[in-house]
Amino acid sequence: MRNFIFQNAVKIIFGKDAESQVGSEIRQYSRKIMLHYGGGSIKRTGLYDRVVDSIKEAGIDFVELPGVQPNPRLSLVKEGIRICRANGIDFILAVGGGSVIDSAKAIAIGVPYEGDVWNFFTGSAVVKESLPLGVILTIPGAGSEASKDSVITNEDGWLKRAVSSEIIRPRFAILNPELTYTLPPYQTACGAADIMAHIMERYFTNVPNVDFTDRLCEATLKTILQHVPTVLEKPEDYDARAEIMWASTIAHNDLLSTGRIGDWSSHAIEHELSGIYDIAHGAGLAVIMPAWMKYVYKQNITRFVQFAVRVWNIDLSFESPERTAIAGIRKLEEFFKSIGLPTSLKELNIPDDRFDEMAEKCIRPESISIGNFMKLGKADIINILKLAY
Amino acid sequence: MRNFIFQNAVKIIFGKDAESQVGSEIRQYSRKIMLHYGGGSIKRTGLYDRVVDSIKEAGIDFVELPGVQPNPRLSLVKEGIRICRANGIDFILAVGGGSVIDSAKAIAIGVPYEGDVWNFFTGSAVVKESLPLGVILTIPGAGSEASKDSVITNEDGWLKRAVSSEIIRPRFAILNPELTYTLPPYQTACGAADIMAHIMERYFTNVPNVDFTDRLCEATLKTILQHVPTVLEKPEDYDARAEIMWASTIAHNDLLSTGRIGDWSSHAIEHELSGIYDIAHGAGLAVIMPAWMKYVYKQNITRFVQFAVRVWNIDLSFESPERTAIAGIRKLEEFFKSIGLPTSLKELNIPDDRFDEMAEKCIRPESISIGNFMKLGKADIINILKLAY
Repeated sequence: MRNFIFQNAVKIIFGKDAESQVGSEIRQYSRKIMLHYGGGSIKRTGLYDRVVDSIKEAGIDFVELPGVQPNPRLSLVKEGIRICRANGIDFILAVGGGSVIDSAKAIAIGVPYEGDVWNFFTGSAVVKESLPLGVILTIPGAGSEASKDSVITNEDGWLKRAVSSEIIRPRFAILNPELTYTLPPYQTACGAADIMAHIMERYFTNVPNVDFTDRLCEATLKTILQHVPTVLEKPEDYDARAEIMWASTIAHNDLLSTGRIGDWSSHAIEHELSGIYDIAHGAGLAVIMPAWMKYVYKQNITRFVQFAVRVWNIDLSFESPERTAIAGIRKLEEFFKSIGLPTSLKELNIPDDRFDEMAEKCIRPESISIGNFMKLGKADIINILKLAY
Repeated sequence: MRNFIFQNAVKIIFGKDAESQVGSEIRQYSRKIMLHYGGGSIKRTGLYDRVVDSIKEAGIDFVELPGVQPNPRLSLVKEGIRICRANGIDFILAVGGGSVIDSAKAIAIGVPYEGDVWNFFTGSAVVKESLPLGVILTIPGAGSEASKDSVITNEDGWLKRAVSSEIIRPRFAILNPELTYTLPPYQTACGAADIMAHIMERYFTNVPNVDFTDRLCEATLKTILQHVPTVLEKPEDYDARAEIMWASTIAHNDLLSTGRIGDWSSHAIEHELSGIYDIAHGAGLAVIMPAWMKYVYKQNITRFVQFAVRVWNIDLSFESPERTAIAGIRKLEEFFKSIGLPTSLKELNIPDDRFDEMAEKCIRPESISIGNFMKLGKADIINILKLAY
């Protein structure tokens, strides 16, 4: 186990009707906020009205910025920064999924910063200040409600880049599983793939002696495997929705990273995919992660054997542990298929003519490789994309 | 799953040499602190000198209050409150195990309170304010380093009582597994029993649909089962000490309580034991918990079957699940024995002549029962003590 610092002060308010508390929570921080959300779904479901009622009741003024798209765009972030500055906003409430929260985080760090907010995403500036923000989560998956990350797409070059800072964790996250009843099956499945990827990126490490967090990772993965099929069959199963929602937050709140080094190359590769082709992040991960596994498992077969035995309950083949490792990867692929996700680029209608460009963008100017479980160069990334095709 | 609020902002600083950061951490809060600890062990090991060096280097003044005993006493808490007030102390650093931290928490809430600090423990006053405190942990087990609880013994009547408040969580907890190398085997084992009890008190619930936190509980329990025998054999095994130390914090930081109702009657009964006989809390729990299980398992056999199968890897008897449930309880007892703990009151030299008095004190004036998995009245408590004899 490696030395670590862990602190996550996000206040989780979990359960039925939890969103009715949003006004009183915000009042501790602000009297004038920006309400940030995506399309019309929160209006259709009545959530918008309930949120506005709670905010008004608490005596809080607000301006609105709707329009966040999946793979949230830098241009909207910049518009948000302008609006906040012009209106003296000192708190942002994100109502939505990972895209809305990531967009809100980018606005929150952009408002007090004099330079171009994109500097934080290229690494040429470090986050030192942020407006406080709160979240009402409607799509479990990204884990942004309690994470220190934001991922934004710059339309100029379709670069999808991340910023990571303790400062941008939300002050509170309201998690009501009922709000996820209306999620279409495909979005539910994409969320599941994202959650599983967050865990697996952490799980596949070469750091030895990480038994406790291994077991926590396995517990969280098994929770997703158990309950996602249930909600695809019964979208209004409160208890299964609740298990997924809470597991999703824990999957990415950094507890599961403690003492270990994660890999994160599948995320990096997927960001190039969804940056160019605008596919759902979870769908991209369902394609890339098994391909990545097939490419790297020989690096540390024991870890893949543990994955197969503990997560997928595969009988260990003592004669050929490698066979067990491969069976685990196959089970993962089968699971993704069973919940309606693609497991090849073809299924996503992504052609094979831009692998070189994506691999090139993935290996950013400042690094010559990605990943930690196995360092990947440009040729490796192309090979993984070919395996995923 | 039940609605819940979860927030734990304690900053965990984990790893080798972590205590060298204590001065810079405290500087964010204070220039004049009280250093609170137990006996001479931190001086013998050199920890005291390293802490004082770090504090001085950060330009922080300090007064000292050593002398915390196991089952920390109200009289020392009151002395601490007097010293803090007289010296304008605004931060307390606890260096030690659960007793020292609990004592520090009690002092921290006593300083800004005009009444008798014991009022918080009898429930006649509510905690509204606390000095900030920090922890350097030397004994994993109590989980007080990240918990909202403090347990103090009032020598007047030997009442052992708890206070629980979000306000008293430490600001930071420094966890260096190397500091636990010198723990004697018996104390290591007592810590393990305390950790396991914290998990099991949460695990045995009648709240349905708590799959995710069940799995987290099981993961944490299995970590303890895996690594405690190792450190009893090799006290300086860094990695095994690290697994235990981190699992111990998570066992009691309230993550494992989310969405569930814990039982806590074993803790209540044990507090009467250690309040009167001044035994180690963990040893008392090793005696009481199996007895409690034998008395209550029929209340919800399925839960005990899950415990047996998932935690102890016992083959489920489909014909007689009850046999499986009983086998799980037996395994727990065997484990406690194997790490050198008592599993009967006789082994602790506790006679059977004060069961009535303890049961009476356990059922406090304000309640007629304890526990949630099964409500226990005075007669039940006596029966459990008899089973434990």
